Amino acid sequence: MSVFFKEIQFDTSQDFDVVDITGYVNNAIEESELSNGIVNIFVIGSTASVSTVEFEPNLVIDLKSAMERIAPSDIEYKHHLTWGDANGKSHVRATILGPGTTVPFKAGRLITGTWQQIVVLDFDVPARKRRIQLTIIGE
Amino acid sequence: MSVFFKEIQFDTSQDFDVVDITGYVNNAIEESELSNGIVNIFVIGSTASVSTVEFEPNLVIDLKSAMERIAPSDIEYKHHLTWGDANGKSHVRATILGPGTTVPFKAGRLITGTWQQIVVLDFDVPARKRRIQLTIIGE
Amino acid sequence: MSVFFKEIQFDTSQDFDVVDITGYVNNAIEESELSNGIVNIFVIGSTASVSTVEFEPNLVIDLKSAMERIAPSDIEYKHHLTWGDANGKSHVRATILGPGTTVPFKAGRLITGTWQQIVVLDFDVPARKRRIQLTIIGE
Repeated sequence: MSVFFKEIQFDTSQDFDVVDITGYVNNAIEESELSNGIVNIFVIGSTASVSTVEFEPNLVIDLKSAMERIAPSDIEYKHHLTWGDANGKSHVRATILGPGTTVPFKAGRLITGTWQQIVVLDFDVPARKRRIQLTIIGE
Repeated sequence: MSVFFKEIQFDTSQDFDVVDITGYVNNAIEESELSNGIVNIFVIGSTASVSTVEFEPNLVIDLKSAMERIAPSDIEYKHHLTWGDANGKSHVRATILGPGTTVPFKAGRLITGTWQQIVVLDFDVPARKRRIQLTIIGE
Repeated sequence: MSVFFKEIQFDTSQDFDVVDITGYVNNAIEESELSNGIVNIFVIGSTASVSTVEFEPNLVIDLKSAMERIAPSDIEYKHHLTWGDANGKSHVRATILGPGTTVPFKAGRLITGTWQQIVVLDFDVPARKRRIQLTIIGE
């Protein structure tokens, strides 16, 4: 059993972006040379989340609509009074979806469904450079 | 330290089902012969989630109502245009709740509350055969 | 590789409380004498959750408002008919946010953002004594 770290970075677009990182995760598992275990995918920062989805553009639109029900864009956020930020909705969404998820792998491959991709949901208002920490534990 | 895999399968009923899998998870821990560690419970597929709940029928009804607020049944989903599916709400709910959760165990038993069961929430519209991957890491 | 357990306990205030436990988690990592790995933070009980947030009082107010959209205080819950409890909303919120999260650490320190604290969100209606299980796996 051992631990293998890999940080990945990429740019995201403003005000809701969903990025498929499944390829990055599979590459990191291969690089780790571990066969069986789990990979924890954790977003550094408090305005984005990690989950899985059938990654196709229409579903991304549906997810954006759902986020508007949970934390609408057109209401007031107290957080804006703290720093003069405009991303109260982004923080609220990220806390509700959570900062990470953990996925199993076996024989060097993720155990996920055919139509199930691992995605980073970036809720922040400005475009961002995102850093995602992958931590692979296995044997 | 070692890794132990166990896949469990069961049938779910249509359009929102909540299945208590605590017994399956305890059995898998026993079968692993590991004493202390974590078990990752991961649903294969993109229309179901894993969480914990006090498992009783009235609370399942309350959860169903909450899901209608997050991703209602009676609105249009763009996803339906992609494949002709009717489960846009199922995908949205599953991404928000996430595909898995990780629970600790000690001396061969889950460290959970008395009124806290591990459940699979199946959001899909048709009845399904579900596959859940359990990954136990411990010593 | 080894497993280290630490249970932390604290009191929470009634009807929505958010507690920053980042310090507890860092202390437990130090006590474990492990350098690299993951820490699973799991709440024992079914009316609280674990996530991350930029911990500042105004954002806590914004989170409380979002919880009212997901599981309002002023509607009826079937769960109240089961036990005579008044915390149906608390259970629903806890299942949606989930009972735990897993965070990586490296060189003995959490890999989290500067403005990203690990928090317990206690949704229960009465004040509670909370027990949180930390499970550290690493080398």
